[in-house]
Amino acid sequence: MTSRDYKFQGWLGFSADSVNGNLRWSTYTPKPWEETDIDIKVTHCGVCATDISTLRSGWAPVDYPQCVGHEVVGTVVRLGSKASPNSPLSLGDRVGVGAQSSSCMASDCEECSGKPSYENQCQNFVGTYNGVFKDGTKSFGGYSDYIRIPGRFVIKIPDGLESMHAAPMLCAGITVYSPLKNFGSGPGKKVGIVGVGGLGHFGLLFAKALGAEKIVAISRSSAKRKNCEEMGADGFIATDEEPDWAAKNERTLDLIVSTVSSPKMPLEGYLQMLRPRGTFVQVGSPEDKLPAISAGSLIVKGARMAGSVIGPPWEIEEMLKLAVEKHVRGWVQPRGLMEANEALVDMKDGKARYRYVLVNEKHLHE
Amino acid sequence: MTSRDYKFQGWLGFSADSVNGNLRWSTYTPKPWEETDIDIKVTHCGVCATDISTLRSGWAPVDYPQCVGHEVVGTVVRLGSKASPNSPLSLGDRVGVGAQSSSCMASDCEECSGKPSYENQCQNFVGTYNGVFKDGTKSFGGYSDYIRIPGRFVIKIPDGLESMHAAPMLCAGITVYSPLKNFGSGPGKKVGIVGVGGLGHFGLLFAKALGAEKIVAISRSSAKRKNCEEMGADGFIATDEEPDWAAKNERTLDLIVSTVSSPKMPLEGYLQMLRPRGTFVQVGSPEDKLPAISAGSLIVKGARMAGSVIGPPWEIEEMLKLAVEKHVRGWVQPRGLMEANEALVDMKDGKARYRYVLVNEKHLHE
Repeated sequence: MTSRDYKFQGWLGFSADSVNGNLRWSTYTPKPWEETDIDIKVTHCGVCATDISTLRSGWAPVDYPQCVGHEVVGTVVRLGSKASPNSPLSLGDRVGVGAQSSSCMASDCEECSGKPSYENQCQNFVGTYNGVFKDGTKSFGGYSDYIRIPGRFVIKIPDGLESMHAAPMLCAGITVYSPLKNFGSGPGKKVGIVGVGGLGHFGLLFAKALGAEKIVAISRSSAKRKNCEEMGADGFIATDEEPDWAAKNERTLDLIVSTVSSPKMPLEGYLQMLRPRGTFVQVGSPEDKLPAISAGSLIVKGARMAGSVIGPPWEIEEMLKLAVEKHVRGWVQPRGLMEANEALVDMKDGKARYRYVLVNEKHLHE
Repeated sequence: MTSRDYKFQGWLGFSADSVNGNLRWSTYTPKPWEETDIDIKVTHCGVCATDISTLRSGWAPVDYPQCVGHEVVGTVVRLGSKASPNSPLSLGDRVGVGAQSSSCMASDCEECSGKPSYENQCQNFVGTYNGVFKDGTKSFGGYSDYIRIPGRFVIKIPDGLESMHAAPMLCAGITVYSPLKNFGSGPGKKVGIVGVGGLGHFGLLFAKALGAEKIVAISRSSAKRKNCEEMGADGFIATDEEPDWAAKNERTLDLIVSTVSSPKMPLEGYLQMLRPRGTFVQVGSPEDKLPAISAGSLIVKGARMAGSVIGPPWEIEEMLKLAVEKHVRGWVQPRGLMEANEALVDMKDGKARYRYVLVNEKHLHE
């Protein structure tokens, strides 16, 4: 059905400067094939802020070269006899990979083998790029022609969801869907989303799809207000423009998902907006510590502060199913895979409205 | 049945120096009687760390004079026709009052009128002392002969629980019982209690009563290890004596309740001990901010940090019922009410093992 004479090649970053338009199209050596693996011919890959932080060694020094990209969609071109994805797959099927490509998968790991499983919280989380597999080889991401991924982390893309739209849901989408669902976004609930970017805009869309009673977008300026309303927001708070925003909105929100990564965020103001027993979930990952808070801001109303990182494979599939049912579509802008350098620089400059997806034209019509 | 010629008198603090053995036995004017009130003849009152912080204006300047004490047990001597306690009461019944004596009680307050109610999280929380009622009068606590309390906050003490033991449960007990129960302490769960004092020792006892699989006491030194084992702890961590305590115990606890109030607590170490999706609950209220944490310490394992403050009246009654059923008894040390000054100084010096209860001898045998 498909030949195996494909080459693993993609956009490699060889130094921190690669983030400034200096990725080089090169071949690379993927992990050695195992029968638990799946090879994917890449058609689409979203551009995530983590791609930028990683390429520039923002959180920690990385092991160059790196091929970033962890919102990958394509088709199965090689299927290991022991690949065990969450949904059965065949050669030629349309599939995706998010930000995780492996975990310990041990039978005594409660995260990997519990029911339900939370592979995303396994201590041996392997990222789709900048990760190291059990055999010591590096993981390479989706700014590329082909990608090799342990089958357990390969997601079936449902009919009725275009690849262009599925791709950014695999990281940005699940990053907000998971906390929205697990912390109770739904009928009767008032939900705030902090930050309106790749993650935040999906936050508004999925809060709506999950049936939240009221959705409030929280941004520094009012520049994105109109877009937010179009995405389903009922309310909008511009924290740099309204001096009393926290007091005025005290105890109004059941759940706040914060997608911002600036450690200068007005955290106590966000907590002030929580209703009693409400939850603030941080999903953006600042390079520095969060601002210190007083215990009282949590104590007096039994409030909670949580973190959340992507989701396990079964939850990604659940999200994609909801996206089909409720017709959730991100605001995506296609860019040619060959324009990856330009797209990355534009992303870094805050120009995306709200997600770039690299399209591998030569694979699109094969 | 009972005469009404009783006098409201108790140990009053007239300045921040009162905490140093300078309370004065004096009369005071309680709130004007309303038919929603209940007067209680005090027999017992626990000595809480909040009594000390309040008397010395530790969190904020207080309006002297103050009569502290919010772990009060006694008998009903006057019962308003419109008092509506959670459990029906008669004159002469044995009752208690915890740290809260009023709230807005409005029909449109979701905390006061929701089902279940959470009066303890109402924005108009009135403390049993250092509070101000709706009519503008001050609240006075239980280091006293008599106390007047809005009936909704008067708790029926069940048969089978001695007054001496019921008293400290009304604040210290519920402060730890509520988060233990609401955040899932029970069969199959591993629970840590930080700090072994008045609150912490009840944490160990109630975690046991709620059926936790494993209970770990976390203290700075190992001085209290043996006591903790007697209270039901299966494990003990001395954070000042074991250099690798956090790493060694990484991902071992489902729930941690922190009763300490020092803002120098090793918060990230505590969070490190949480299992994925575990919860750290702060109930001690430091006068300064909590240490700053990195978002990653919550994000990578979907961990949660929460606050909790006492509990609503129905939950206090639920706790007392459990205490009868499971024979939970705090480690209490009786002190005469007339020795309140000495007891307070000893408490301040950390001598309590683990809770002083002031006994009003002259009311005990009437």
